[in-house]
Amino acid sequence: MKGFGVIKKGTVGWLEKPDPICGPSDAIARPIALAPCTSDVHSAYEMEGPHLINRILGHESIGELIEVGSEVRDFQIGDRVVIPCTTPSWSYPSIQDGMHQHEAGLVSGINFSSYEDGTLCDRIKIRSADMNLAMLPANLNPETAVMITDMMTTGFHGAELAEVKFGDSVCVMGIGPVGLMAVAGSALSGAGQLLAVGTRPDCVTLAKEYGATDIISYKEGSIYDQVMDATDGNGVDAVIVAGGDLETFYTAFGICKNGGHVANINVFTEITSFNIPIEHSGGGWMGHKTFRGGLCPGGRRRMERLISIVQAGRVDPGRMITHRFHGMDSIPEAFQLMVEKPRDLIKPVVILD
Amino acid sequence: MKGFGVIKKGTVGWLEKPDPICGPSDAIARPIALAPCTSDVHSAYEMEGPHLINRILGHESIGELIEVGSEVRDFQIGDRVVIPCTTPSWSYPSIQDGMHQHEAGLVSGINFSSYEDGTLCDRIKIRSADMNLAMLPANLNPETAVMITDMMTTGFHGAELAEVKFGDSVCVMGIGPVGLMAVAGSALSGAGQLLAVGTRPDCVTLAKEYGATDIISYKEGSIYDQVMDATDGNGVDAVIVAGGDLETFYTAFGICKNGGHVANINVFTEITSFNIPIEHSGGGWMGHKTFRGGLCPGGRRRMERLISIVQAGRVDPGRMITHRFHGMDSIPEAFQLMVEKPRDLIKPVVILD
Amino acid sequence: MKGFGVIKKGTVGWLEKPDPICGPSDAIARPIALAPCTSDVHSAYEMEGPHLINRILGHESIGELIEVGSEVRDFQIGDRVVIPCTTPSWSYPSIQDGMHQHEAGLVSGINFSSYEDGTLCDRIKIRSADMNLAMLPANLNPETAVMITDMMTTGFHGAELAEVKFGDSVCVMGIGPVGLMAVAGSALSGAGQLLAVGTRPDCVTLAKEYGATDIISYKEGSIYDQVMDATDGNGVDAVIVAGGDLETFYTAFGICKNGGHVANINVFTEITSFNIPIEHSGGGWMGHKTFRGGLCPGGRRRMERLISIVQAGRVDPGRMITHRFHGMDSIPEAFQLMVEKPRDLIKPVVILD
Amino acid sequence: MKGFGVIKKGTVGWLEKPDPICGPSDAIARPIALAPCTSDVHSAYEMEGPHLINRILGHESIGELIEVGSEVRDFQIGDRVVIPCTTPSWSYPSIQDGMHQHEAGLVSGINFSSYEDGTLCDRIKIRSADMNLAMLPANLNPETAVMITDMMTTGFHGAELAEVKFGDSVCVMGIGPVGLMAVAGSALSGAGQLLAVGTRPDCVTLAKEYGATDIISYKEGSIYDQVMDATDGNGVDAVIVAGGDLETFYTAFGICKNGGHVANINVFTEITSFNIPIEHSGGGWMGHKTFRGGLCPGGRRRMERLISIVQAGRVDPGRMITHRFHGMDSIPEAFQLMVEKPRDLIKPVVILD
Repeated sequence: MKGFGVIKKGTVGWLEKPDPICGPSDAIARPIALAPCTSDVHSAYEMEGPHLINRILGHESIGELIEVGSEVRDFQIGDRVVIPCTTPSWSYPSIQDGMHQHEAGLVSGINFSSYEDGTLCDRIKIRSADMNLAMLPANLNPETAVMITDMMTTGFHGAELAEVKFGDSVCVMGIGPVGLMAVAGSALSGAGQLLAVGTRPDCVTLAKEYGATDIISYKEGSIYDQVMDATDGNGVDAVIVAGGDLETFYTAFGICKNGGHVANINVFTEITSFNIPIEHSGGGWMGHKTFRGGLCPGGRRRMERLISIVQAGRVDPGRMITHRFHGMDSIPEAFQLMVEKPRDLIKPVVILD
Repeated sequence: MKGFGVIKKGTVGWLEKPDPICGPSDAIARPIALAPCTSDVHSAYEMEGPHLINRILGHESIGELIEVGSEVRDFQIGDRVVIPCTTPSWSYPSIQDGMHQHEAGLVSGINFSSYEDGTLCDRIKIRSADMNLAMLPANLNPETAVMITDMMTTGFHGAELAEVKFGDSVCVMGIGPVGLMAVAGSALSGAGQLLAVGTRPDCVTLAKEYGATDIISYKEGSIYDQVMDATDGNGVDAVIVAGGDLETFYTAFGICKNGGHVANINVFTEITSFNIPIEHSGGGWMGHKTFRGGLCPGGRRRMERLISIVQAGRVDPGRMITHRFHGMDSIPEAFQLMVEKPRDLIKPVVILD
Repeated sequence: MKGFGVIKKGTVGWLEKPDPICGPSDAIARPIALAPCTSDVHSAYEMEGPHLINRILGHESIGELIEVGSEVRDFQIGDRVVIPCTTPSWSYPSIQDGMHQHEAGLVSGINFSSYEDGTLCDRIKIRSADMNLAMLPANLNPETAVMITDMMTTGFHGAELAEVKFGDSVCVMGIGPVGLMAVAGSALSGAGQLLAVGTRPDCVTLAKEYGATDIISYKEGSIYDQVMDATDGNGVDAVIVAGGDLETFYTAFGICKNGGHVANINVFTEITSFNIPIEHSGGGWMGHKTFRGGLCPGGRRRMERLISIVQAGRVDPGRMITHRFHGMDSIPEAFQLMVEKPRDLIKPVVILD
Repeated sequence: MKGFGVIKKGTVGWLEKPDPICGPSDAIARPIALAPCTSDVHSAYEMEGPHLINRILGHESIGELIEVGSEVRDFQIGDRVVIPCTTPSWSYPSIQDGMHQHEAGLVSGINFSSYEDGTLCDRIKIRSADMNLAMLPANLNPETAVMITDMMTTGFHGAELAEVKFGDSVCVMGIGPVGLMAVAGSALSGAGQLLAVGTRPDCVTLAKEYGATDIISYKEGSIYDQVMDATDGNGVDAVIVAGGDLETFYTAFGICKNGGHVANINVFTEITSFNIPIEHSGGGWMGHKTFRGGLCPGGRRRMERLISIVQAGRVDPGRMITHRFHGMDSIPEAFQLMVEKPRDLIKPVVILD
């Protein structure tokens, strides 16, 4: 098969590899819609390891099944499917403790581009097909659907981790595509005041469409001061960190009310420690601020659930697509766009249908 | 003072009573917007008891403060306020167990028209003003706001009791004003497929606006069969009973998935028992169907939370107002409308501003 | 293989059947300790269906592995294992919604004696061995361990379903072995006052050892009155129904406080409906009483968790064993004891080690 | 009145102050049993501020009422009462969001020794008597009961913050009196393996009595390595930080499993930031480790709940008392003991009955 990936750290390009073998519970798909992700750029240029040599990248994809394992119950060749970025094997006991994302170790559920090849290729192999794939509804646009596989599940997970409930005031730090979906997920959790921290005009416009009530720009002064001003000095019930640097992360604790929640869905690379100042900690953690972060949920039911939200018309994640490419040959160009991140980029998509 | 209420069972009319006395933590308001409620009709014509003789009715109101107790901290004469239908005293230890609605016994939090006079009058007395009142924002229409005080908090509580979460399939039984708000509350909890059971055309239209994806009419056949058909035989994750008769209530258990939730926010009067058939019980309650029902939450923070949702533009409960009246003198006419329930009625409101 | 089971409704005896085939993820064990269960009696004498003809009974067992499938990762021939009564296949998406007990339909997780033969035999087949078996610790007595496989997981699930927390007052209805474990599970959830309803002297003694503070006997008068008396008229925060008839079940709602929980772990057979009187319903379900019931959790992690509680010395479920038998040949006698239920019986066990 | 307190930073002694005035919802008690706390030592020697000049210290007390406000409903002169260390006013709306400890700002619920005088005096004033006091049962020893007011509620809150559930493996860092109660609270939450980190022999003995299964000593090597060894490299489901330095705090994150909980009930003074190393963070917070910390719950229901646990015989917090003093005059000596912390000290108590 042919795929686009990392040849060695810092070098990307096309790779020729043997066709994947379809195990009894696996399925193999040709791509219909693909999207490169910032994590792919991290994998190519910042991270390192034997698994990142001659490794096909990508984990956001919609496909059509071209091969199906003998034990697969619910899918057939020709089915058009939504492929989550998190595809656990579902065969380790730790899923019984609720941790499918880490079933066999930290973030083991992210199989694409790590334990096996990713999805920027012509033959995408999905393990545990019955447990990981969801049917693409006939009336759901593949390019919209590909936004569900990672961006929507991750952003919405931010709202889950922050336990947003009716009338909570919420601040989403960062309004790239994950932050935008955190805004939408918070609105669909019944948030009241919903502050979004960001500056890029297209993102600001979309944040408002997705439900933000206030926009905070770090260019206008301290985020802390602006959030406290906008909330009459109360701070917010929930903070979702979906971007920004370590200072932003520390500020998240400071603007969180006593009894509130801080959620992290941002990826931090190349750092050595998190140095949270005492003044943001609620008196040395006496104030019942709950903090947690975690990799997005995946698997079939998660996709089916998010698809049903999109189909009900509650949110259109396809609004984030700013750049469209066509055909396998355009993958390198789409990928390069993620590397360069022009100011008008939110998400690119490659359409192969 | 002058108020409209129940003289004796079956007879309503104007009552003259001594002006209420404003205790140190109380406040007294003149009404700005009032709405009669189906429960008022129940109190007048179906219920009985010494507390329902010469009792002013009403519990949905927006007011302007004309007197404020000496210990009230946060409100002053002239403030325009949202008055929740549930106004506990907040002075019983059971609130520490989370039960403000039942702080001093079953539904004791409903003080209006039960332990004290209701709000269909010219001098509304509110106990524990700091704990029960919320400021009416300048840009929030009083007639919209009066829909928050009972209808929205009750309907949204349905979604809370049913623990609706991202991608749940939900069925709301009944789309009167409470059911409509249960639809909106479910949509704002991230429901996917959202079935609403009802037939009145204006309600059906509004249910769709509030987020319903499927309309089920009992006139078209069995509710059970239609819901099972619409969900490919799966049933739904959450059922909210906001209307209907006992058969509807029993059906709620039948259409609920194993592991799902049934919530009741309907009021049952004049019955002696709930006879749930074994076939709707999940094999004699082996299927992890969770059931609960309860009076709507009230108090200040509840109102502030719901107000913030309305202000964020996530739902407009004012869309339910079908009939508008002006001035105190129109209260009897508005009340009579609730008695007669014409087919085009959703909610009437009396504006006094 | 040879096993003890139901030949046809009402007739039990030894069955000769072909040896079970060990699939790639399965394991086969010879029994070390077995216990018949009241449900086995129900299956033999009260229930009916094609799956209950020539069906080996039993689902409480400890075994030693004599065959292990090719894909089993964590177990080998010779391992001594705890076999839960609930052994799902773990291969249906509904486990992603948390419902392993009902993964493929209501109580589908109970595979023994329903979809396949049970454990009262010389060759116990366990599906999904890695996901369902737990290692028997060297210092844990097999006869104690067999009490974990159903009685402890079911009784403790009662405390989970009732959400018992620090200082809750709890009432456990019925103190057969499941009720006794519900008492112990409630004590180990931090219950305060803990009422147990039962009369048999050995059970009463053991209920106190497991943490009951008050014993209620239906022979002394109405359960409702006695519980209300014992709680100063408050009722209890949590009720666990682990025995009794329909009246007992209805009473559970009546003695539950507003805001409290009613949990059902009792099995009701041969009934047509549950007729809960309005006076026990909290004013027609206005009082936030939460009700749920469900089949006990199973699988490997559940067993490992319960084993760790027993090993920590927090509860000794082996104290429930009143009758010990030795060898396969004694199975019919042990089973007959469950049919007759002499007054001094709590649990019999058959030891084969 | 006469009380023992801080004259100015670093100087403690007897203070003569005007008798407290009993407001309408207040009560005043003479002490029956008192215990000084490590926090009192912090207040005297490490903290500073206008509220810590001529301030009576102390917040652990059992008393007999000698004066009762006119609006107090449930208590009378002569009642013997348990006085929680956290006594909120219960009159701020933030209690409606569940935050009674921080009702009027961070840790505002701790009124004793901060906003008003503490309890090491002959006339203890308690605000909101109906909401804060609990009756001392006749059969509950006052010296045992005084251990409930702060140590037990704080330690048990550790288990709550860490969400300990059936079969969780737990590590409690520090086994002073708060840590010991965290051990007991974890055992009474159904913990399985329960590691306690500490070295003082009396504490180690008592930790085992309260339910610890493994003792870890920092003197034997790295806590991290020992915990990982004791858990077969898995780490634990829940960590409760009840003592130790910043390194201990950081280690808590490292030994926590993905999906686990870290709870802080330790007080950190004189530090500027929390510098959590990336290697303990679960890959930059991708591993669903939940962290929270907070001041102990107080108020009447909390006391009643904990009292009921003690009365049920589930834990005896009185086992922590190592030193007994008699009479007001012995308060300075008891306090000095807390300053010096001899190796055999767990808790001193002053008995005045």
